[in-house]
Formats: sequence, C-alpha cells, structure tokens
Amino acid sequence: MIARLSRYLRGLEGAMADGTQTINSKLLGELLGISDSQVRKDFAMFNRLGHPGIGYRCEDLASVIRETLGMNRSWRVVMVGCGNLGQALIGYQGFRQRGMKIDTAFDQDPQLVGKKLGDLTIDHFDNFAAVVEAKGIRLAILAVPASIAQNTAETMAKSGILGILNFAPVNLNLPSSVSVANVDLTIELEQLVFAVVQNRQLE
Amino acid sequence: MIARLSRYLRGLEGAMADGTQTINSKLLGELLGISDSQVRKDFAMFNRLGHPGIGYRCEDLASVIRETLGMNRSWRVVMVGCGNLGQALIGYQGFRQRGMKIDTAFDQDPQLVGKKLGDLTIDHFDNFAAVVEAKGIRLAILAVPASIAQNTAETMAKSGILGILNFAPVNLNLPSSVSVANVDLTIELEQLVFAVVQNRQLE
Repeated sequence: MIARLSRYLRGLEGAMADGTQTINSKLLGELLGISDSQVRKDFAMFNRLGHPGIGYRCEDLASVIRETLGMNRSWRVVMVGCGNLGQALIGYQGFRQRGMKIDTAFDQDPQLVGKKLGDLTIDHFDNFAAVVEAKGIRLAILAVPASIAQNTAETMAKSGILGILNFAPVNLNLPSSVSVANVDLTIELEQLVFAVVQNRQLE
Repeated sequence: MIARLSRYLRGLEGAMADGTQTINSKLLGELLGISDSQVRKDFAMFNRLGHPGIGYRCEDLASVIRETLGMNRSWRVVMVGCGNLGQALIGYQGFRQRGMKIDTAFDQDPQLVGKKLGDLTIDHFDNFAAVVEAKGIRLAILAVPASIAQNTAETMAKSGILGILNFAPVNLNLPSSVSVANVDLTIELEQLVFAVVQNRQLE
C-alpha cells in the first residue's frame, strides 16, 4: 500500500505536469497499470477529498499523499561511499526533484577525499559522526563495497542515522531503531531474466 | 517467492564464500531475516535435496535456484543511456559477478558517442537495431531521461529486446511480450522516509 502511494504520487505529478487538474481513481489506475479495484480500495482513505462527477483535484490528492508519506517537507541525506555508484547517485536529478538533498558526501579513500562533485566536496568518513550530529541529519545512502558495509553502517547508526538506503549487497544487522531499505540492482536484473524466460516459455 | 529465491541465492553464495558447505533452512532464514515458516514453505520444492540431520549442500541448493531463475547461464545486456547513472551502472561490479555482461552501450548525445568506458565504446543509438539483432541480445538496461524513455523503449522492443530494466521514472507502455522491471530510486528513498517517520512515532 505504502509503495503504491509513491506510485500514485508519481502518476499525479506526471498528470499535473501535462496540465491535468482533476482525475478519477479509474484513470489514475490505468495510467499506472494498477487494477481498478485495487485503486478504489487504496483510495478509501481519500474519499472525503472526492467530488462527485469530477473526481479528485490532483493538487489536493498529491498534497495528502505527500503528507502521509512524510514528503511534505524536504530531507537532507548524506552519501557514504563515493565510488562509481555513489557519484552517479549524487548526480541523480530525481532525488532533488523529490525534495531530497544530498547534503554531504563521505569516503575513506584518500584519492576521493577532497574531490569536488558539483557543489559537494567529498569529506573523510572519519568526520562522519561530527558532521552528521552537528547538522542533525537522519538519512543516509550507503554505497560502499559489501566487505565494509556492516561496519560502516554500525558507525552510521551510532551517529544518529535512522534510515539507510543500502546499495551494498549484504543484509545489514542494525538496531531496530534504524530503518533499512535495500536496493540490490542484481536482484532486479535477475528477476527480469526470470520474467523473460517465463514469458518465452508461455509463447 | 521469486524475489526471495534471489535473496536465498545471495545468502548461499555469501555462506559459501565464508567456507560453509552445508546449511539448513533455519540458518539461511536467520542470515537473511526471513521467517522460519516462510523459508520452510519456500523450500518445499527443494525437499528432495535435503539430507536428514545435515541440511542442504550449499552448492546443490545454489545450483537448483540458479536454474530456476534462469541464471545457470550468462546473459548479455545492452545499456541504453550513458549519462551519470548509465556510466555508473556500466562500472557496477555486481552485474558481472552475477553473470550479466554489459556487451554494448548506446547514447544519442554526440558528446558521449565514441567515449570509452572501460572496455566499452559508446555507440550511437541509431545503430541499436542493427547491433542488437546481429548479436541476438534480449536484455537491456534503460537509463535515459524520462521525457524520451517511452519512445526509446518502443524502438528497443521493435529490435527484439524482451526484457528491460527501467531506471527512467515513467511507466512504460509496451507489448506484453516485453518484460519490464522498474527501478525508481526516489520511490525507494521515499519508502525509507516513511519507515523512519513511522518508527519515530512508535517510540
């Protein structure tokens, strides 16, 4: 449900960018490839926003979904690990567009520390605790090699990080006060291979 | 289930790398944070591989899971879109480790065409159909801007691509013979924000 809220929000924002001002649940479902009955079930919580015969004002609906998701404010994020993937994520426009600003970037490689990436300068991971505590940052993206991910994440958790978007292909063991979302790109590609193989067998 | 198979495989490979030769479902579940009852349910299909009192030989189990996923062979993949994200994905070690080789990379930006990335040279997207058809490649990673993603994907589908790992934040409309796996990094981060906000409210 919560994952679909993000998708509804993305669909609404796309529709608004195209000049659409009102939408109904059926249209939004079609736009996103989500079944009509599923959308209606999810939207029960938004019923009070609906206008009979018109549907929903996109702006109102988007605003309530943003609030539900905690995205009605901007969030500062730190990047830990500035190799290829980390640098690409720092340059990724999508985060900024969604109100998530990469505030500081860290690495421990002397070849990377001090390097400028856009308006960021890579800081040494030794300074992580001091910087994060001083700025009160709670969210981090972890893009270090698998071999040092657990240790690095533990240091991050001790410094007050409460949410980690983890790109390292390991299962992090952290206190339950820290939320972890794993992004394993190889799993995504593997699932795709499976879908293709299945699809072909059905032909 | 299929998503968990990828995770089991990842867990098994990690265990084998640490020298473990046999494992039972309980241990594997703990390693991955998947409940015991869920693992047992999933593993019903592997029962014939189990040895009473010993568990599973990691190598046997991994091999059957790879076969189920279609990962018992290597796959050639093309990259479409070689901006920041595309370049990082080309450099991403994980794909190669999982038997997925990025064979060719395409872009339409004259500033990028001809550029060398490791042992790849970026080719012009105009050559896409010819190259992909000649090589018989079926899998592609799409990392172009949202505004051109649909058109680009249609060209790819017409050239025989059957599976697209899509990093563009749009819902692609393609024939059902083409499988699409969407990776929207902002959705992942948004879900993490939600989890953090919820976690704090529970304190």
